Amino acid sequence: MNRTTDTSVTVIGLGLMGRALAGAFLKAGHPTTVWNRTSAKAGQLVAEGARLAPTVGDALKASSLTIICVTDYQAVRELLGASDSELGGRTLINLTSGDSAQAREAAQWAEQRGARYLDGAIMAIPSAIGTAEAVILHSGPQPDFEAHRSTIDALGTVTYLGADHGLASLYDVAGLAMMWSVLNAWLQGTAMLRTAGVDAATFAPFARQIAAGVAEWLPGYAEQIDRGSFPAEVSALETDARAMNHLVEESEAVGVNAELPKLIKAMADRAIAAGHGGEQYPVLIEEFSRPHND
Amino acid sequence: MNRTTDTSVTVIGLGLMGRALAGAFLKAGHPTTVWNRTSAKAGQLVAEGARLAPTVGDALKASSLTIICVTDYQAVRELLGASDSELGGRTLINLTSGDSAQAREAAQWAEQRGARYLDGAIMAIPSAIGTAEAVILHSGPQPDFEAHRSTIDALGTVTYLGADHGLASLYDVAGLAMMWSVLNAWLQGTAMLRTAGVDAATFAPFARQIAAGVAEWLPGYAEQIDRGSFPAEVSALETDARAMNHLVEESEAVGVNAELPKLIKAMADRAIAAGHGGEQYPVLIEEFSRPHND
Repeated sequence: MNRTTDTSVTVIGLGLMGRALAGAFLKAGHPTTVWNRTSAKAGQLVAEGARLAPTVGDALKASSLTIICVTDYQAVRELLGASDSELGGRTLINLTSGDSAQAREAAQWAEQRGARYLDGAIMAIPSAIGTAEAVILHSGPQPDFEAHRSTIDALGTVTYLGADHGLASLYDVAGLAMMWSVLNAWLQGTAMLRTAGVDAATFAPFARQIAAGVAEWLPGYAEQIDRGSFPAEVSALETDARAMNHLVEESEAVGVNAELPKLIKAMADRAIAAGHGGEQYPVLIEEFSRPHND
Repeated sequence: MNRTTDTSVTVIGLGLMGRALAGAFLKAGHPTTVWNRTSAKAGQLVAEGARLAPTVGDALKASSLTIICVTDYQAVRELLGASDSELGGRTLINLTSGDSAQAREAAQWAEQRGARYLDGAIMAIPSAIGTAEAVILHSGPQPDFEAHRSTIDALGTVTYLGADHGLASLYDVAGLAMMWSVLNAWLQGTAMLRTAGVDAATFAPFARQIAAGVAEWLPGYAEQIDRGSFPAEVSALETDARAMNHLVEESEAVGVNAELPKLIKAMADRAIAAGHGGEQYPVLIEEFSRPHND
């Protein structure tokens, strides 16, 4: 059942993700204008009630809020550059994938043309858009976010991170690093246990419990980092390092990949070599904060 | 308030962990015999009611169940070897840190001497022993575990993994790999966000939510591994790899360590090179299951 609202919105870029975004706005009852380089991709959306704009300039003029989601930041600049006189006084939310420097540059470019600019990152697959599972991160001026929040709420779980336009993409890749790290650690353990005939489904609940349990420690450990003081309240890094040896040796002994175990140990060994063996794990922030060149 | 029970137990090895184990048995009301190479470490336990055995042989004879927790498996063999005639008909639970091969060898050695043998791994710090937080893993013959379960329950959350004596140490290091991986991914993200002035406490709840959320996917992903079939229901590895590039590039651009991002990407790139780019992330089990030599 579609709700109705009179807040119109424009979506530029109708790849898989752009179509999902426009579809969610339509479903929420927003008059939705769309534009794509190849207009054929708008067919289904037009059938659902979207208006296809003939040019980017027309698309921008149709709404006070435009969402753009295209291949990369280069494409954003090219598409909007030809119609940049239409940006003045309008709000642009850029959900294109990119890095924090690109987000800050795009913000400057858009603001020079009189636009309000928010940068965003979508932590979801297209099919999740429009559900609470789709987390969409935003950064830029908070009043501009709040002004359009009720509209973009149609896209999923919408989050505001701060005024620095680079934050959305930084949080995005940081979240992905966590995602892949949990998966990789689980794969490491699964590979080891399979050598003893334990199937993946048997090991998974154990891995899940550890990951969820350790996640709960993070806010407390964060306090150590923010204080810059790492007393060994639970365990000293030197003690951890001995157990890391077991992990590396066991991985090698059972014949699985040992690169992740070795990297875990290498980071700790460097911190110990730097004199932090008697401190607690979060002291490794010093190693993670600087490049390492072999 | 101490409960009382007539099930006696022996603890050999009174390092920090051994003393915690003996203390938990005493608190639960078990007549507890202890032995240590240097008897001075038994002082506090004796004051709490423990009986100090003069020799390892006397310690073994005092109870049908002995828990041993010493430096390494070499020390287990040396300490028990001189009194191995006392092992016959008794149960030995070895909570000494070691690897799966050592556990299987120790089981064989003990069983040749007529002992029932369980291998265990303690996933806890000494101060947590005796509380539900202390997870203690056991592997070996299930009837021997069940026969003593009511006694060892005094130590914490006691878990049985399977008949293969190597399982306790395999699950232990696999759990530690998960622990360190969650912490490292969080440190990676924290280091990146700090370059934008975001403090660790601000980022931690976000990291916690991702880790806990991804943990929930593991049982479903495990089914793909056990079936050996990895359809890209959520996302194809090729798509993930593009986002991994962003992670690596962003880490380098903001000047933090990029080794963890590069390892994440290297594992995926190898799977893609092996023809799995159109499949889903758990197909990486093939890379994690074999050694890699640069």
